[in-house]
Parts: sequence; C-alpha cells; structure tokens
Amino acid sequence: MNNETTQKVTISKTTQLFAGIDVGGTNIKVGLASEAGEIISHTRFKTEQSQGPQRALQKAVDIIHESLSLAGLSGSNLLAAGIGTPGPLDLHTGRILNPSNLPAWHNFDVQKYLQDKIQCPVTFANDANAAAMGEYWIGSGQQYSSMVLLTLGTGVGGGIVIDNKLVEGAHSLGGECGHVCIEYGPEARICGCGVRGHLEAYASATAVVQRYCERMAIPRDDQRPSARKIAEAAASGEPVAQQLVLETSEFLARGIAIIGHVIDPQAIVLGGAMDFGGATSKLGQEFLETTKKFVKQMTFAPIGQNVTIEFARLGGAAGWIGAAALARLRHVNVE
Amino acid sequence: MNNETTQKVTISKTTQLFAGIDVGGTNIKVGLASEAGEIISHTRFKTEQSQGPQRALQKAVDIIHESLSLAGLSGSNLLAAGIGTPGPLDLHTGRILNPSNLPAWHNFDVQKYLQDKIQCPVTFANDANAAAMGEYWIGSGQQYSSMVLLTLGTGVGGGIVIDNKLVEGAHSLGGECGHVCIEYGPEARICGCGVRGHLEAYASATAVVQRYCERMAIPRDDQRPSARKIAEAAASGEPVAQQLVLETSEFLARGIAIIGHVIDPQAIVLGGAMDFGGATSKLGQEFLETTKKFVKQMTFAPIGQNVTIEFARLGGAAGWIGAAALARLRHVNVE
Repeated sequence: MNNETTQKVTISKTTQLFAGIDVGGTNIKVGLASEAGEIISHTRFKTEQSQGPQRALQKAVDIIHESLSLAGLSGSNLLAAGIGTPGPLDLHTGRILNPSNLPAWHNFDVQKYLQDKIQCPVTFANDANAAAMGEYWIGSGQQYSSMVLLTLGTGVGGGIVIDNKLVEGAHSLGGECGHVCIEYGPEARICGCGVRGHLEAYASATAVVQRYCERMAIPRDDQRPSARKIAEAAASGEPVAQQLVLETSEFLARGIAIIGHVIDPQAIVLGGAMDFGGATSKLGQEFLETTKKFVKQMTFAPIGQNVTIEFARLGGAAGWIGAAALARLRHVNVE
Repeated sequence: MNNETTQKVTISKTTQLFAGIDVGGTNIKVGLASEAGEIISHTRFKTEQSQGPQRALQKAVDIIHESLSLAGLSGSNLLAAGIGTPGPLDLHTGRILNPSNLPAWHNFDVQKYLQDKIQCPVTFANDANAAAMGEYWIGSGQQYSSMVLLTLGTGVGGGIVIDNKLVEGAHSLGGECGHVCIEYGPEARICGCGVRGHLEAYASATAVVQRYCERMAIPRDDQRPSARKIAEAAASGEPVAQQLVLETSEFLARGIAIIGHVIDPQAIVLGGAMDFGGATSKLGQEFLETTKKFVKQMTFAPIGQNVTIEFARLGGAAGWIGAAALARLRHVNVE
C-alpha cells in the first residue's frame, strides 16, 4: 500500500467515515476508511518525539480534517476515531504507560486528549492488537471469524480477534503472544522482557540476527548483518542462513501450537518484516510451508490440518486500518 | 454439593428454568437451575455405557420432567437445556466424535437427539468448557469478566470464558490448555495425546503418580499409590511427595504463564481432584501460594501481580451447572 489514495470510492454527503491513527516510535500513520472498509485517504508523518504527544496528535487531527475537506466532506461525516500505540498501556484509563520507544509520551492521556481535539468518540488499543483488527477487517483475516496476528519484527507482537472482538485482556495484555515460553532451562535465550525462553527471543528479527552471529562467530556489533541480509543469504542458498530459517519456523510453530491449543483460531496470520520475503518470495513460501508442517506435528489433528496459516496483506497500514475498524465496531455496537 | 435439593428457591408458575446434563464415562449428572442461578434440583445416575446413549439421554429427560413435576411445574417452565460431554466433539454438527471413555457414544448426534426428546432448544459443549461456564456463572469466577478453568484430574482440562462467552474454538478445541507444551526436547514426558511435553503430562493426577513412582523406584503397577495417597504423604511431611507437589506447582505455573500472555484473563480457577486438598487443606493452600509465586516470576508484572488464582467451588457439579448456564445464555441472546 503506498502513501496515496488508491481506491475508487463513491463519496457522498452521507458517507460515514472512521479515522484511524497508528502511533509508532518513528512514524505516525493516519487514514480514513468508510463503513464498508474502503480506504478514503492515508498518509504518514514523522513522530518527532521531542515535540511531545500533543503536537503530534494535533497534526493527526488536522490531517483528518483536511482529508475530509478534500473529499468534500465535513466533521459530521466522521463517526468515530481509533488510535493504536505501543504498549504497555492501560485501556481502562485510556493512558499510554511507558513504552521504551516513545519516551516523550509516557503516562499521556491519549484517548481523552484525542477525544477532546477530534470531537468524536475515540477507541484506544495496543498497536499489535489494532493491526490484528485491521487484517481481520479487510486483510488476510477477513474471511475468518477468529484470527491471530503474529507480527515478526524487532520483537514479536500478537493480536487475537474472536467473533469481531479483540481479546484485550484484563490488564491490557491480551495477545502478548511473543511472550509465550517456547524453551525452558538455564540455556534458554533471554527475551527483551528479561524472562528466558519466550518466542520473541527466538523468532524476532533481533533473535534471528543474534543466532546468525553466534553461528558465524561474528564478534563485533558493527559487523552484524541485518535480518534482511540474512534472508537474502538464505534465499541464495547459504547453508547457515538456510538452517536458521528452518529453525525459526520450528520455533514459530511451537508458539503457534500453543496458541492453537489455547484458543483454536481459524487462522494464524504472519505479519512484520521478519517474514523472509513473505508471500511473493520462494523463501517466504518455504518458511510458511515448513512452519505449517511443524504445527501439524505439534497439534491435535483438527487444528494442525485445518488451521489456516498465511502472510498478512496490509503491511504497515494494518495498524491505522485496525484502529479505524475498532472505532467502527464500537460505533456499530453503541448504535 | 450433595445429591439433594439444598437451596430454598421460591418457585412460581412463571419461574424460568434451564436444565443441565453432564455426561461422564462413569456418571451422568442432571440438574435444573433458575434464571438467577439458583439450584432447583440435581441428581446423578450411572452412565451404563453398554446400554448406549439413547437410553441414558431418555433417562436424563425423564429426570428433568419428574423434577419439574415435583416442583409443581411443567415443561413450559423449561426454556432451554444444555449438555456437556467429553471431547473430541463437533460443535457445528452437535455430534460427539470418539472420546476414549465413552466408546458406546461414538459419532452420536447428541444435540439433535436430546432436542427431539426434550422439546426445547439444546446447547452442546465440551465437558471442561461447560465446567468453566459453571464456575463463571455461580462459582469462583462469578465476579470476573474473564476466567480460565484448569481441571487437574486424570488429565488436565481447560475452559476459557471471556465476557460471558466460551472460547469454543474454530475446530471445537478452544481451551485445550492441558495440551500447551511446557517442556521440550527428547526427555520431555509423553502426553496421553502422544505429543511430548504437554502440561497434562506433568500436572495431571496420572503424571503426579508416574513421577512419584519413578522417584521412589516403584516398579509394579499394583504397588502404585493413588494421587490422593501421594497428597496425604506430602501433607504428613514425606519429603519426596512434598518435592513433587512443589514441582507440580512450577509446571502448572508454566501453563498459567502461557495462558496469561495469550489471553490475559482476570482469574485462573483450579478444579479437579488433583488439587492437593484444595482450599480447605494446608497443603492445598501451600500448593496455590507456590503456584502464584512461580506465575509472578514468569509473567509480565500486571499479570503476575493481579491475576487471581484460586480453587474452584462447584466440584463435580460445575459441568451440569455450566451446561444449564450455556442454555440460559443462548436463550437470553436469542430472545
């Protein structure tokens, strides 16, 4: 998905729209979607943390109003807005807590501030959960009633949707699937959260690079390849990199098997940059097939044989689209 | 809970009732509950597998009608019925599949048959899921919006309720928490399902007895103590048995930590016979406290510090009560 408005949508004065905002450490993405899930507009701008959350959110609101205006619409066409941010956050109070990649936003009242500025109901979500809702609405999950998104990136994020509802969790920690334990004992790798053995410590981009450097005895940080380089090496037949991809699919399968036996979803969708090229690459397809094979070995037959495992479709747009989807769902439920 | 009607309920001609049936390999439990969750009647009879499911279900229906009649009510007071059976089963077709402890019931159309006989809408559920709904309705889970029941018995069963809804799963396998993997590698214990390392292979009564016999080098099957005997030995200070209880709480905590990071429930409720005496025993309380301590070490702080972990309250009645609760919920939703 590029930065321009790509879909042709018939916009009338009665078109009902939902805004989505996805706050990241580097960029903030903003877009408008219709009730039917058509993309009306979308754009992104730098987070510029030093300027704080007020300025960033004001800019997002300004963009939303400009987009409405460009489409010949007004604020009355905007029924609700959604915003996703990195966790930890507190969904009950609408407050972001202390995510490491957003220091200037710590303890900010995201939901209340945005609601005051944008003058419509605002829903608030963890960014990975919002992305799951995006894929569920108009991406890879749209034909399923239950779906788990696993985002393989710097870390491993997760989001669970069952029957149109996010599993948000009692402590705003629902879907933290990167932190299911897939290895035990004193040799298990230490996760970014400090606990040993979590999926994130094995299947994130960071973990793949770390494992590659150990295997290749690369001692210095400035000599570390990127995860993308390792994927390219595997694609070109480099045995160590190929072995790493195979092992990653087994680790990932352990996580998927666990999730399968806990909630038994219809589909598992794999997003994030650490997808070894994804659906359009031979390596990505091999990675997917190997993962499926391992999942089959590790789960009850009806799960292993029938759960759909596929790549995500919305890329980096999943977050804002999901935030808009959450706004829409709450609006529909309240109505 | 004994076999007699114990609660004083004002029954009028307009009382709305729900029937629950819990089918086990040994006994079938049947009861009536009111809209408000009061127990009107409950009883049990032998499953007598050789006589097949038709006869057993006819008997259950007869008991329900007699109970209505004894209360001065008629079939019109019965709004709906629920039935729970061991899995595997297919919730979409209402059919039991091939549970090992109910050979005579294989591939039987439970839901349809019962509906024809009882002449009211019938809901169908996995027995562990039904039990979870029972605890959620009027047991340990009643003050929570999300709850997971783990039943530690011959196996380890599970059921997940979030916002009044069971996580049934896309393949009728939601809440199979006994089959989350908590140990990997060639030394991991083999679960009853054939896969290594599942929680059930470590924290079920069967597993506790097995581990005890290995530790004590008890070679012959006829010398194996029961799980209850091992609990008694631990309670009386026998070191090997005490060590086993401690280890069991750590294995259980691994499972709870996984569930915590996937769905982040408000409460985890521990049921089943393998509870080391439960809430009323010193050993049971120690087992619970040790489990909580391990969970705290293994999870994100908001989960470890705030998730409630406690024993179930309904004992063997949870299944039929939950089946009645499911009937009630469907009735309320349809209405």
